[in-house]
Amino acid sequence: MSDLLGTGVGRGVAHGPVLRMADPLGAPSIAPLEGSADDAKQAVHTALAAVAEELNERGRLAGGDAQAVLEAQALMAQDPTLLDDVHARIDGGTNAERAVHEAFAQFRDLLVGMGGYMGERAADLDDVAQRIVAKLRGVPAPGVPESETPFVLVARDLAPADTALLDLDKVLALVTRDGGPTSHTAILARAKGITAIVGVTGADDLAEGQHVVVDAAAGTVVTEPSDELVADVEQRIADRRAALAAPLTAGALADGHVVPLLANLGSPADAQAAVDLGAEGVGLFRTEFLFLDSPSAPTVASQQASYEQLLRAFPGKKVVVRALDAGADKPLPFLTDKDEENPALGRRGLRALRNHEQVLRDQLTALAQADAATEADLWVMAPMVADAEETEYFVDLARELGIRTAGVMAEVPSLALMAEQVLRSADFVSIGTNDLTQYTMAADRMLGTVAHYQDPWHPAVLRLVAQLGAAGADAGKAVGICGEAAADPLLAVVLVGLGATTLSMTPAALADVRAELGKHTLDEAREMARAALAASTAATARSAAAAVHAV
Amino acid sequence: MSDLLGTGVGRGVAHGPVLRMADPLGAPSIAPLEGSADDAKQAVHTALAAVAEELNERGRLAGGDAQAVLEAQALMAQDPTLLDDVHARIDGGTNAERAVHEAFAQFRDLLVGMGGYMGERAADLDDVAQRIVAKLRGVPAPGVPESETPFVLVARDLAPADTALLDLDKVLALVTRDGGPTSHTAILARAKGITAIVGVTGADDLAEGQHVVVDAAAGTVVTEPSDELVADVEQRIADRRAALAAPLTAGALADGHVVPLLANLGSPADAQAAVDLGAEGVGLFRTEFLFLDSPSAPTVASQQASYEQLLRAFPGKKVVVRALDAGADKPLPFLTDKDEENPALGRRGLRALRNHEQVLRDQLTALAQADAATEADLWVMAPMVADAEETEYFVDLARELGIRTAGVMAEVPSLALMAEQVLRSADFVSIGTNDLTQYTMAADRMLGTVAHYQDPWHPAVLRLVAQLGAAGADAGKAVGICGEAAADPLLAVVLVGLGATTLSMTPAALADVRAELGKHTLDEAREMARAALAASTAATARSAAAAVHAV
Repeated sequence: MSDLLGTGVGRGVAHGPVLRMADPLGAPSIAPLEGSADDAKQAVHTALAAVAEELNERGRLAGGDAQAVLEAQALMAQDPTLLDDVHARIDGGTNAERAVHEAFAQFRDLLVGMGGYMGERAADLDDVAQRIVAKLRGVPAPGVPESETPFVLVARDLAPADTALLDLDKVLALVTRDGGPTSHTAILARAKGITAIVGVTGADDLAEGQHVVVDAAAGTVVTEPSDELVADVEQRIADRRAALAAPLTAGALADGHVVPLLANLGSPADAQAAVDLGAEGVGLFRTEFLFLDSPSAPTVASQQASYEQLLRAFPGKKVVVRALDAGADKPLPFLTDKDEENPALGRRGLRALRNHEQVLRDQLTALAQADAATEADLWVMAPMVADAEETEYFVDLARELGIRTAGVMAEVPSLALMAEQVLRSADFVSIGTNDLTQYTMAADRMLGTVAHYQDPWHPAVLRLVAQLGAAGADAGKAVGICGEAAADPLLAVVLVGLGATTLSMTPAALADVRAELGKHTLDEAREMARAALAASTAATARSAAAAVHAV
Repeated sequence: MSDLLGTGVGRGVAHGPVLRMADPLGAPSIAPLEGSADDAKQAVHTALAAVAEELNERGRLAGGDAQAVLEAQALMAQDPTLLDDVHARIDGGTNAERAVHEAFAQFRDLLVGMGGYMGERAADLDDVAQRIVAKLRGVPAPGVPESETPFVLVARDLAPADTALLDLDKVLALVTRDGGPTSHTAILARAKGITAIVGVTGADDLAEGQHVVVDAAAGTVVTEPSDELVADVEQRIADRRAALAAPLTAGALADGHVVPLLANLGSPADAQAAVDLGAEGVGLFRTEFLFLDSPSAPTVASQQASYEQLLRAFPGKKVVVRALDAGADKPLPFLTDKDEENPALGRRGLRALRNHEQVLRDQLTALAQADAATEADLWVMAPMVADAEETEYFVDLARELGIRTAGVMAEVPSLALMAEQVLRSADFVSIGTNDLTQYTMAADRMLGTVAHYQDPWHPAVLRLVAQLGAAGADAGKAVGICGEAAADPLLAVVLVGLGATTLSMTPAALADVRAELGKHTLDEAREMARAALAASTAATARSAAAAVHAV
């Protein structure tokens, strides 16, 4: 029995037999073109049209987000610039398959070079190229295997066309060799609630039919699991099902210590689903959706309308809105700089807003007006804040523009180190554990080769959380958690032990966290926190905390 | 009187009248080619040859490093791929000047896209293109202005051809609008000991003849300085001259508390110059020079020979060698990954070595053998270490291979946060303040737009140094400083107050630091440190420390 490690998506666990997705077609031969260039171009034309039609058809069947992705792929297949490039290569004497392969590969490299979101789209383009080459070659396109019985799908990576048509009743879990937390596989697995682990070293060695346990919370694929482990997994699956079905109570520890459980949201449209899952408010409302796909910032009036829509879903409840967090993986042409060598360490978040203060002023104005027109309790916070000076800048501006409760995200290590100063002017802090972990460990959270550093259980991260928690307690101010860490039930308990006063997470995780909090008292949570702080690695911190109070 | 801010290079201060370098030629017209393509190509050919000859001639006059840079530029001017591209554009109907401009601009964008060292070379290429266009246009190339009296040179940026021929007797200081700490201007200013500030916002507004104070230590250009400030500057210049001429004593505080002053070195050839400036050993020996420009790692024997050469220069003295720190701005094809989106947060330093352990084993073996064959006291440390687990990995391997004293760099915030655990196995830590600041503030230290975060005076950074200092004192182990911070005389005193036991710096800074240490007792240094820790910004930390014990 050995464990393969990767980046888990979500909290699920599953076990079953491996079914492998066919590996991609080999690269086409470089043999020169035989026959006429016109014939070759005609063949390409026919293949492109057929592939585009297939993709559109799959999109119609899948619907929703998947349809948009597949239709974008169909457009890629018919991109006139790419077609011109294919034609030029054929005119130069390259065979049709090879010409498609080379033209798409060149464009692919361009996308990879752009990195981030565009880089992750490279897999989509590869998939389109494979489909066209398969069509030219007269062989079936690589795709999702079919099975009558449930299976764990193992693949190099999944393209939208694959995942969109997955039969969810049959797929127990997804395991991919490539891909990071923002890869297409991860995005779709999250949206569809499929247990998944991406970036799994050694995934290529998993054999067809082999029995595996896929534990997304632990990020492990266990081969040849023992009977005890399988029984444990079955129990966890049953527990999880029970937790998801349990009545919606307010978040609290076993001794009644209140820990409001809030939702991370990316759009007002997601508000009702969060309420239905028992969210007691919003701990992180991301406002980037208002600004993306737009050549300039939206008007105050249009922003206000969106914020009012959000706030109306939470009358009398706390709603924490994060000011625009542009830059790094979320570039905005009117706000952020291009060509930063290390965009994660660049002019992002409050740094970009301070450089374009009118964008920030407009957003704060729209928020204040939406607050005045609705019944929710609006809190506003700035992203990527470094210290007390930047905190004062933001809080002063927010108050000037009518925001009643203004705070900052704790993502940059320096902010945590200066916590007691920051809380002199901030009304609250909210800890973004993803970025705080990334910077504390100096490891890119999007990069597979250093993904193992991206673990908020690392005692160094927990020590910064403890500093923030202590400063919050001294100042009598709220210290929230809004990173992925809050969605890890055991870690959620430890974070409360470190001084977190609220936990915000993806709504799908609320039930699991609510159930776990109810098993521990505050004293136990603090004891678990002390054990984790004294550990030397993320793994030993987790096991030390679990050992303190196993339930 | 207003201050312009930029990134200071070195410790110097100067004042004098501004002389501006002519702005570059405007972009050539897009008017179509007149006359024959062959004539245009011939004109380009003649211009290229003339420019290459000029650059080579300037190189011969300048000698040394500058000659290598200028000869590289001459090669750029004659690059056959670029010439082919120019010819193709002329054949396509573009005029000669425009064809040169476009071909070089395209290649330039490629370099900028590569970022880092290659990106910084873009300015060199622009300079070559300007020279060729000027030659085609029959006008003088933009360049360094001439003057009979000393001046402060202000420019957009300086190309190697400019700086190589600077008359050092006339140039009081350099101020450039563009460029970061690794720009050509910064590299040459450091090598030639010229007071310089790069990346100065507002440099374009400095007028010809305007009187300015250039304070590299503070990173400020003060326009219309008061008489008092000028008098103060004159005094600092005189003090600095006196310090440089003072006898070479061992580093110590006013009360006799010993603080060995060590040198940062990048090659064994620099050892003697460091000894001549009073270095009491080596606090950071960078080994990258052995590995650069090489398709694979050098052999154990060839490494051993280099290490012996180094160690022989310091009999009986401490020499701290850093294991290969590849990655980020120092990529090595056989060791580091390409296409990392944030290379500073990528698989660099020990992470890369652990992934290619034989490279590390060979280096440690060569060091242990060199140590056995010489009389120096060799210490070896690993770069980019995150926590106690990684520390143990390195220290165990080093001991296994015969290294007697093994430690780690403190650059990643998590290492400082876990200091007490790290020092259970490490024999010492050495704080790399440049990277520690970069990660603690989450701001790229090579990026101009966030350069103001790159200040080791920031109290958040000082708080991490204090944690390391306290852990070192508890464990009775050495805590060195080997980042730029140690070269800032006042900060050097504060660092000792925070618990640093040795200071290592570029040898040119030894005299300034030695002089400043001698002015303060340990109690005073500690009081200065406490004042700095309680401040909220880098600037107030500095002024608070200075106010505690002004001398």
